[in-house]
Amino acid sequence: MSAFRKTIETFVAGAKTLPQRYFVSPEIFAEEQAKVFARHWVCVGHQSQIAKAGDYFVREVAGESLIMVRGKSGEMRGFYNVCRHRGTRLCEAASGHAAAIQCPYHAWTYGLDGRLVGAPHMDDVPGFDKGDYALRGVKLALWEGFIFVSLADKPVPLEEVFAPLLGRFTHWNLPQLRSAKRIEYDVRANWKLIFENYSECYHCPGVHPLLSKVSPYDSAENDLCEGPFLGGFMTIAKGASLTMSGQACARPVGDMKGADHARVFYYSIFPNLLLSMHPDYVLVHQIWPQAPVRTLILCDWFFHPEATGVSAPGYNPEDAVEFWDMTNKQDWHVCELSQQGIASRAYQPGPYSPRESIPAAWDREYLRHVSNS
Amino acid sequence: MSAFRKTIETFVAGAKTLPQRYFVSPEIFAEEQAKVFARHWVCVGHQSQIAKAGDYFVREVAGESLIMVRGKSGEMRGFYNVCRHRGTRLCEAASGHAAAIQCPYHAWTYGLDGRLVGAPHMDDVPGFDKGDYALRGVKLALWEGFIFVSLADKPVPLEEVFAPLLGRFTHWNLPQLRSAKRIEYDVRANWKLIFENYSECYHCPGVHPLLSKVSPYDSAENDLCEGPFLGGFMTIAKGASLTMSGQACARPVGDMKGADHARVFYYSIFPNLLLSMHPDYVLVHQIWPQAPVRTLILCDWFFHPEATGVSAPGYNPEDAVEFWDMTNKQDWHVCELSQQGIASRAYQPGPYSPRESIPAAWDREYLRHVSNS
Amino acid sequence: MSAFRKTIETFVAGAKTLPQRYFVSPEIFAEEQAKVFARHWVCVGHQSQIAKAGDYFVREVAGESLIMVRGKSGEMRGFYNVCRHRGTRLCEAASGHAAAIQCPYHAWTYGLDGRLVGAPHMDDVPGFDKGDYALRGVKLALWEGFIFVSLADKPVPLEEVFAPLLGRFTHWNLPQLRSAKRIEYDVRANWKLIFENYSECYHCPGVHPLLSKVSPYDSAENDLCEGPFLGGFMTIAKGASLTMSGQACARPVGDMKGADHARVFYYSIFPNLLLSMHPDYVLVHQIWPQAPVRTLILCDWFFHPEATGVSAPGYNPEDAVEFWDMTNKQDWHVCELSQQGIASRAYQPGPYSPRESIPAAWDREYLRHVSNS
Repeated sequence: MSAFRKTIETFVAGAKTLPQRYFVSPEIFAEEQAKVFARHWVCVGHQSQIAKAGDYFVREVAGESLIMVRGKSGEMRGFYNVCRHRGTRLCEAASGHAAAIQCPYHAWTYGLDGRLVGAPHMDDVPGFDKGDYALRGVKLALWEGFIFVSLADKPVPLEEVFAPLLGRFTHWNLPQLRSAKRIEYDVRANWKLIFENYSECYHCPGVHPLLSKVSPYDSAENDLCEGPFLGGFMTIAKGASLTMSGQACARPVGDMKGADHARVFYYSIFPNLLLSMHPDYVLVHQIWPQAPVRTLILCDWFFHPEATGVSAPGYNPEDAVEFWDMTNKQDWHVCELSQQGIASRAYQPGPYSPRESIPAAWDREYLRHVSNS
Repeated sequence: MSAFRKTIETFVAGAKTLPQRYFVSPEIFAEEQAKVFARHWVCVGHQSQIAKAGDYFVREVAGESLIMVRGKSGEMRGFYNVCRHRGTRLCEAASGHAAAIQCPYHAWTYGLDGRLVGAPHMDDVPGFDKGDYALRGVKLALWEGFIFVSLADKPVPLEEVFAPLLGRFTHWNLPQLRSAKRIEYDVRANWKLIFENYSECYHCPGVHPLLSKVSPYDSAENDLCEGPFLGGFMTIAKGASLTMSGQACARPVGDMKGADHARVFYYSIFPNLLLSMHPDYVLVHQIWPQAPVRTLILCDWFFHPEATGVSAPGYNPEDAVEFWDMTNKQDWHVCELSQQGIASRAYQPGPYSPRESIPAAWDREYLRHVSNS
Repeated sequence: MSAFRKTIETFVAGAKTLPQRYFVSPEIFAEEQAKVFARHWVCVGHQSQIAKAGDYFVREVAGESLIMVRGKSGEMRGFYNVCRHRGTRLCEAASGHAAAIQCPYHAWTYGLDGRLVGAPHMDDVPGFDKGDYALRGVKLALWEGFIFVSLADKPVPLEEVFAPLLGRFTHWNLPQLRSAKRIEYDVRANWKLIFENYSECYHCPGVHPLLSKVSPYDSAENDLCEGPFLGGFMTIAKGASLTMSGQACARPVGDMKGADHARVFYYSIFPNLLLSMHPDYVLVHQIWPQAPVRTLILCDWFFHPEATGVSAPGYNPEDAVEFWDMTNKQDWHVCELSQQGIASRAYQPGPYSPRESIPAAWDREYLRHVSNS
């Protein structure tokens, strides 16, 4: 794992879909939340969302509302969104800017570093020490500009987890990109169905007629075929782009090499990130399980910072947004149909085809984390 | 049970309503679904709904979505609505027409007989045999034109179950009738309250003033008084009909004998069918328990096939539809009030009157199936 | 407890908020319903709501729908809203007037005293005796014009429970007042948060800017500091009133003594009543827990009977209604924020300030009733 090398995709004959309980059981869902989402590094956003000191945003991880905030000296921190006085939710807005974090109930006030700096009348309490009541923090780290948090006390360092990808995505310029659009989807399907759907294009001819026209379903070449990082690229028809018009909708996101101008790279980052890197934009899905049968999906369209603005030549983000919003909805719909059928007593694990080797690999990785169910 | 004979209605003094738990307990509801709805023959519709080869409709039985479809040689079959590949729901529409059953996800295709006939790329999987992946079927049988299914592996043959009714309903012409209208009702009451309500007219003077005017509440004469088939007839005022106008709304459904021209026959067929045979139309209720406190009711108005059409003399189905839609809603309302009161700690089984001998008999039949609660 | 005496407010250093489970656990919620709301005297309304014989209103207590009705000789009674025949809910309307209580299903009829007086066809049932089927009653008693009920078989007499308050509230004239307005609030917070919020004004500067202007947050003087009755008064700015306009909105509710013209008295009456006595009106909150995270609150604005009517000089109830509706909503909002934060794994009981001695006392009283959790 010390250096990346191109692996050969291997189809494991006999691989089948997961048993029913993994898609419907509240107990397994709770186990996933505890063993995966409350323990692993999960992506909560991008550093551009909190560009200036005092900028913050809020995200829910494993049932916990967290505040991600940039401090005065530029460093980013994560805190539980809970006042130490009577437990009140501190930040209501999804994002904002503040000089300090003040509780809306009794006005206890915390610095951007989490320290309690104001607590009216508490000096009258014998033995009360502000130093005992800082906000509870969570671990926060960056990879390629994306913000990851972990609720674990002592998580494996992020750079160690991502070591296999070191330098691999550099030329897409990910830390510098900015989101032009976010859409939230509330999908009535188990979160694993979203990953399994993302990881194959066997379904593309029937489900995505427009996508299939621009990017042939059988052009996939995977170079990450086992483990927490999975995927590869598909070919884009010459001169085309994955937009409604079929034309590029912005300047290139990075410093593309020859063939990459006609490729879209799809990678899943266990457990909650999908990275879809096109020549002209990068699509990012955050996958947030809400219940065994429900998943919240945040989808961002990232562009080069110099591409944006009405005056930038050829900049037309809606062309990409509309394309993938349509494609997303096609995917969520078949995921919801799968959820419905899998709940039946007639469901049995079915056979994966050779075109579904990545979903099968994703299932294997998943079972390494949630194995005793 | 070999031949039908007219029984004498006997009122069992001391009969009381069922204990509270039968109306509110999730455990008893689950037991009912398992022991009754997933085991017995239940009515899912009428053969006229799938008149031509390729016609299908979908219905949910005991939590399972089923496809009822007419095959190429005219025979009807029932299948679980679940793809054998990745478990996807196959048919989304409530009904339709198709040459084959194709999965919307990866295009696996099944014949109308359930056999897997197309599975792209699966030939590359060593050992894969299409013969192993036919749709899972359910037992299907006909009685008087109504389609019944059973999720049991080896159900008692339908003709054996219905032997006591052999030939009894012949002159109503049930297999030839066609539904002119269906209304679905979502009722906040336990399904057994629907049967208990249907089985007596003690409530009619207060709840159904219009019905009581045309059909006296004390005119009931029951001829099936114990077992899975219960009911009898009530008198219709001379020259009248159970319609808003009080006049017949279609030609007779069958070959009525003398007194039957002024009678409406009400029968409950355990566990999910109510048959209300009027001279000019037949009302059919399917009763589908959804939860201890919720029941879905499908109500169809059937007419003689030659009665229908705008040109048919005196054909006015809305006259009957409006009458029973009003009467249905009056009934569902008192059922919902009963559900509310029965949930109270003040509820105790109350005494049935002699006018409620059929609800009491229905309760006894029910307890033969769900006895160990 | 034999006689009321002014107690000295003592702050218990080290007092902290309740542990998380008291705010989220369904088991503790069920225990509260059983040990508190289904056992204690709880306030369901005011005698003025059923002024005349035959007047009734319906309220739900511990999941039970109850009918409070004034009988022919003027006495008030409480009954379970359940027919003794088949358990049907009897009264659907929230309030009304009736000569008798008749079941909407089969027309069984009860007198205002609960006796079964009509049951069609039941005389044919051997051994049936109307005397066995009276409505099931609940205990009902009055305190200062407010109606309390208890679902217990043998509750401690109400006058014994309220003995500590004997004569204390006389000059507010509570039995004679009438509600000019009721607003219902559906709050997504545990019911105990409502009491804790009501019992301190530490939050007022930030949460209630208008209230704080008229009634300084640090003017509270509590005279009931331990036990089921808690509270005291706050000062109203000279010449002002707790209304939007800042002016009195009606004639005084009672025979105020000197300083009381510039005081508002706030008392909580365990377990479900808040009494806020202003010079010109009395605000009454009923607190009805619906779920661990949901509370129904009924808020009434009571006025002197001679104050009301469009012709009464200076009568402007909307001035008070608008003021407290705004203030109520400010409170419910921070209660909902607390509920959200307390559900976090980051929540730990936090330290009460000296300004929160009454919430701490309320918690202690609560734990006397629900102690083994």
